[in-house]
Amino acid sequence: MTMTKKLIITLLLLISIAFVHCLAFHVELEEFEPPRQEEQEAPVGEGSGEGWQEESTSEFPYHFRKRSFKNWFQSKEGFVKMLPKFTKRAPNLFRGIENYRFSLYDMEPNSFLVPLHLDADSVVIILQGHGVAEFVTAKTKELFHLTKGDVVRLPSGITHFAINTNQTVPLRFAKITIPVNNPGQFQNYFSAPSQFQQSYFTGFSKEVLSASFNIPEELVGRIFFGPQQMGQGIMRRITPDQIKELTENSTSPSNKHKDKSTKFSPFSLFTHDSVSSYTNDFGHFHEAHPESFDQLQDLQIAVTWTNMTQGSVFLPQYNSKATFVTFVENGCARYEMASPYSFQGEQQQQQWWPEQGEEKEEDMSGQVHKIVSRVCKSDVFIIPAGHPFTIVSHDENFVSVGFGIYASNSIRTFLAGQGNVLSNLDTVATRVAFGVGSKVAEKLFTSQNYSHFAPTTPSHQQS
Amino acid sequence: MTMTKKLIITLLLLISIAFVHCLAFHVELEEFEPPRQEEQEAPVGEGSGEGWQEESTSEFPYHFRKRSFKNWFQSKEGFVKMLPKFTKRAPNLFRGIENYRFSLYDMEPNSFLVPLHLDADSVVIILQGHGVAEFVTAKTKELFHLTKGDVVRLPSGITHFAINTNQTVPLRFAKITIPVNNPGQFQNYFSAPSQFQQSYFTGFSKEVLSASFNIPEELVGRIFFGPQQMGQGIMRRITPDQIKELTENSTSPSNKHKDKSTKFSPFSLFTHDSVSSYTNDFGHFHEAHPESFDQLQDLQIAVTWTNMTQGSVFLPQYNSKATFVTFVENGCARYEMASPYSFQGEQQQQQWWPEQGEEKEEDMSGQVHKIVSRVCKSDVFIIPAGHPFTIVSHDENFVSVGFGIYASNSIRTFLAGQGNVLSNLDTVATRVAFGVGSKVAEKLFTSQNYSHFAPTTPSHQQS
Amino acid sequence: MTMTKKLIITLLLLISIAFVHCLAFHVELEEFEPPRQEEQEAPVGEGSGEGWQEESTSEFPYHFRKRSFKNWFQSKEGFVKMLPKFTKRAPNLFRGIENYRFSLYDMEPNSFLVPLHLDADSVVIILQGHGVAEFVTAKTKELFHLTKGDVVRLPSGITHFAINTNQTVPLRFAKITIPVNNPGQFQNYFSAPSQFQQSYFTGFSKEVLSASFNIPEELVGRIFFGPQQMGQGIMRRITPDQIKELTENSTSPSNKHKDKSTKFSPFSLFTHDSVSSYTNDFGHFHEAHPESFDQLQDLQIAVTWTNMTQGSVFLPQYNSKATFVTFVENGCARYEMASPYSFQGEQQQQQWWPEQGEEKEEDMSGQVHKIVSRVCKSDVFIIPAGHPFTIVSHDENFVSVGFGIYASNSIRTFLAGQGNVLSNLDTVATRVAFGVGSKVAEKLFTSQNYSHFAPTTPSHQQS
Repeated sequence: MTMTKKLIITLLLLISIAFVHCLAFHVELEEFEPPRQEEQEAPVGEGSGEGWQEESTSEFPYHFRKRSFKNWFQSKEGFVKMLPKFTKRAPNLFRGIENYRFSLYDMEPNSFLVPLHLDADSVVIILQGHGVAEFVTAKTKELFHLTKGDVVRLPSGITHFAINTNQTVPLRFAKITIPVNNPGQFQNYFSAPSQFQQSYFTGFSKEVLSASFNIPEELVGRIFFGPQQMGQGIMRRITPDQIKELTENSTSPSNKHKDKSTKFSPFSLFTHDSVSSYTNDFGHFHEAHPESFDQLQDLQIAVTWTNMTQGSVFLPQYNSKATFVTFVENGCARYEMASPYSFQGEQQQQQWWPEQGEEKEEDMSGQVHKIVSRVCKSDVFIIPAGHPFTIVSHDENFVSVGFGIYASNSIRTFLAGQGNVLSNLDTVATRVAFGVGSKVAEKLFTSQNYSHFAPTTPSHQQS
Repeated sequence: MTMTKKLIITLLLLISIAFVHCLAFHVELEEFEPPRQEEQEAPVGEGSGEGWQEESTSEFPYHFRKRSFKNWFQSKEGFVKMLPKFTKRAPNLFRGIENYRFSLYDMEPNSFLVPLHLDADSVVIILQGHGVAEFVTAKTKELFHLTKGDVVRLPSGITHFAINTNQTVPLRFAKITIPVNNPGQFQNYFSAPSQFQQSYFTGFSKEVLSASFNIPEELVGRIFFGPQQMGQGIMRRITPDQIKELTENSTSPSNKHKDKSTKFSPFSLFTHDSVSSYTNDFGHFHEAHPESFDQLQDLQIAVTWTNMTQGSVFLPQYNSKATFVTFVENGCARYEMASPYSFQGEQQQQQWWPEQGEEKEEDMSGQVHKIVSRVCKSDVFIIPAGHPFTIVSHDENFVSVGFGIYASNSIRTFLAGQGNVLSNLDTVATRVAFGVGSKVAEKLFTSQNYSHFAPTTPSHQQS
Repeated sequence: MTMTKKLIITLLLLISIAFVHCLAFHVELEEFEPPRQEEQEAPVGEGSGEGWQEESTSEFPYHFRKRSFKNWFQSKEGFVKMLPKFTKRAPNLFRGIENYRFSLYDMEPNSFLVPLHLDADSVVIILQGHGVAEFVTAKTKELFHLTKGDVVRLPSGITHFAINTNQTVPLRFAKITIPVNNPGQFQNYFSAPSQFQQSYFTGFSKEVLSASFNIPEELVGRIFFGPQQMGQGIMRRITPDQIKELTENSTSPSNKHKDKSTKFSPFSLFTHDSVSSYTNDFGHFHEAHPESFDQLQDLQIAVTWTNMTQGSVFLPQYNSKATFVTFVENGCARYEMASPYSFQGEQQQQQWWPEQGEEKEEDMSGQVHKIVSRVCKSDVFIIPAGHPFTIVSHDENFVSVGFGIYASNSIRTFLAGQGNVLSNLDTVATRVAFGVGSKVAEKLFTSQNYSHFAPTTPSHQQS
């Protein structure tokens, strides 16, 4: 009897071992799934004094909260934050914009971003402050004064530096980057060493550098490999005198073009004649199309600036070809978008097959997904081509800037307001499509007299 | 002794538990493999009255039988059928055309396709019937009358509708679609609700729509969210009077251009001067090159129409750059193609790694694969660039239409018939290459006097 | 007591079974990893008499030793060697150049490469020898005489053949190929059969060929399917008389343009006016930009030729947009490059997920990787855009040729030597960036008076 008992106990023990072993395997699998979501969403930059706290818990893949940014560089002279690749968030939904990266720069007063180049093309919008950028080539130097609303095209491989020339206000800018080597990946190449990043000259032997520069090896070692720059970041404090010297006294005046207009000169979204602008009591809208600007044409990038007063609505619309990466510069707003795409499972997929995902059957459900999110300062949201969307401002001065990808010949099509596309439909088409009578068909899309921006307190009761 | 027996039994039991546990894991893996092939090939649309039965069992990846189409929409007013992504069939072979989708439309007499836009560019060929299409923008309306052989470019994001204006004949058209957001994926966006698909306005809050349209929320709810359209599909029956009103009485005549020629106006493959045409007793061939048509240029799409009499051969040829997606509109034919690519294992691969496949070693066997298939009405076959192919008509009036992808500056190079490329080779080159004497070398590629199309009953005995 | 012992033994036994079972699973996984690395690096072509032995054991992914080439064709008349897809070596690092393939051709004296076409565009540089190429279309024949330094653009799908017209010297050329059907994959299509590859006419039925050519089936069978060519490769020995006939006596003189300049005519890197050239005592450099040559423009390919004397340095530089695939034609050199990209784990990744790799966290270490390799005759090395690099010649006559990918508007930016970009920086910028005084800042980048090429024995002690 006791023997049998012992046997039973043994059996149970062994079954439990097998079970544990079984579990262990599953645990292993689960450990294999990286808790990426948490990592990705972990708050960053809490030391930046910018107040990057979370505001909501929406999990729509189109909305990147400010905590999604990664700190790429940070010191008391400023910071650079970068969004992860869009396809990390939703590999299928964002495959079309995989090669585009968004980042945010902040340079404190009297700071200097040391000379560098990128293996990527970039477009920059100045969000705040005053500064200069200088593009240096073997033969030319171009110095540009920059302020809020200016758009700068940085060609791939151009050696450049930047200065916040203001004594009090940070210089902030948003940047979209299009890598030339690897889809979605680029690097910064610095000639001078810093605590943050080695000089690219450390990729060479000292003897070769000595021969190339025709200077002693000892000097090569001291300047490019030495420890003296280790206390310095890629942004450095400089004196007002040095700023004056850099911006006013050119070392070779003959070939230094100050704000001379060349093909890739910066332009202002607020004042350039070729910018499409619209203004009424409820908002301002500025858009630079790639067809109109040499700076944007080859990259097919559009750039927008939107200001809205409290309680106004940026009327429902869609972009015919462009997908917009939109950054909130000030205030909060509600963003509403209609998407026929399903994004269920994008997160799960991502963990298993990070890049590709197991392709799902195509969504033929005919369902329109309602995407509603509260977006606030420093958030990013994506508006894919064709998707109808609207923005309702919650704050007195809601400001957002946008980079339109594949924007060549893209048309912004409004679905409401004066001159919207649906108001141009034949009445009989409206009647048949919406199953309404002639009277409703005629009023439906023509009762809103405002264009682009309208108040959220409708006037239809009065009219 | 019994104890020992019991122990042995216990042991066996536990081993079998371990074994079952082991098996269980493998079963799990197998269940993980979706039986995609069956799903993909399952007959669809048997209710369409079109006779979509299978005709043969060829498994060449280049040939998509009509049962490969998926029903995207179907009602008594018509249907829309779409091929799955080409890469679902053969991930490696078709990577180059992954972003192109093929679909087939049928609109019954007196039917109306409700206004919509796509996040994709499209090119359409009218296969049969008579109809109109209207493109609506904020400022313009363009109405086009369409009939067999007309080619329509639909720009991405354009709001449009279509009508079968004929009282008896269905309006049929084939469409190639090039998504702008996601490679190989696009969606249709409808302003009006239907049983088939929600209105894109359901993506917005009622309050926002009310404010945007400046109409009461109740009306918003009734029109966009209400159940009244639920009995209606995206194709609707309309009365001849409504057709007359839509096509003749424009609501705003001043800006309605009837068939006025603009950059993206439709054109006819049969009559436009810039179409390359060839005709003899055995067949007709029409090809619109992207270099000659603004409508096709940016998409680099070529469009072809081929008619063949019974027993004629479309002479062996290859396209230098374009890959053709060819649709059989009428009759049956034998399609023969030479491919140096191996496609063994494409199906198996697909099940494991749907998108990418585990890359095989490159095929350096020097083997030419003989691809022969009987293609019939509503089948699709792919002719990749460089691949020599020929078509032998089995029926009195074999008709096929083709969309050429990457067709800019692609040259159609005939390998037989009057003026073929090989007849232009130096005789000594032919002699050395084919190991033949001067007499054979001179006759080999010059004995066929017909061009493009020839009879299958050769005349060489007589000549 | 013994019972308990037995039980314990049983327990241990079962635990060990479970353990073995556990191990078995892991073993299975390991067997799943193909030992690709060994395969890839296996020596090839040891019978070629070219001395393709290994020279070093560097494992930098940027350097492909000659043993990395695969023998695509080899006979006593010559050989064709091809590099595997770059992404096979490093799936992430080389995703941007995945679609480009590099190959090397050697045709012995008096040999003939039989007529063929490719489903790919190509650019060829003649490395050595003398020959002719003929492009044949339905209407034209273009015969080109080729010699060292000539660049030939082969349009996709063009039927062509080539001859080594010299009696003693092999004709050698390097080729970059850009497939039109499948990223990174292309095939050769031969009209005539050979032991190496079947005729593409074997893809057709004999009856169809008989009807198409209007010749008897028996002749079709003998010429295209017969065994008589089986002793012949794709390169064939021809007699000087046949060469004379092919190059001098045209079969249809009226349409045979001898070296007439057309859009895609070959040009010489050494003599064409639009080539950028630089020469000093230490080296020669020639570069054809795609902006200057119709032959290269649509492919965005640049072509370079570099000659260096012993002990000279091709000064540190980077390309702003182009990634160069560089082939060593003669001698050995040290190649140094700075890369901020991490390539640790590229090999391992590759074995698991051949195409895609499990995407790593982005490298934000700020580390610059020092890539140093000794490159010798027939090696290939990659210089990605933005990466600073230098070459130090070890031999009296080091020769390399390069194909620049995405080279439109790419600028070669020198970091040392007369007129380098850093010498054009404002002194104050240099001072702040490098943490040096005015005196050093002024001398640092201006002490080298040579441009492009300089001696490795520095003269700074004297100056």
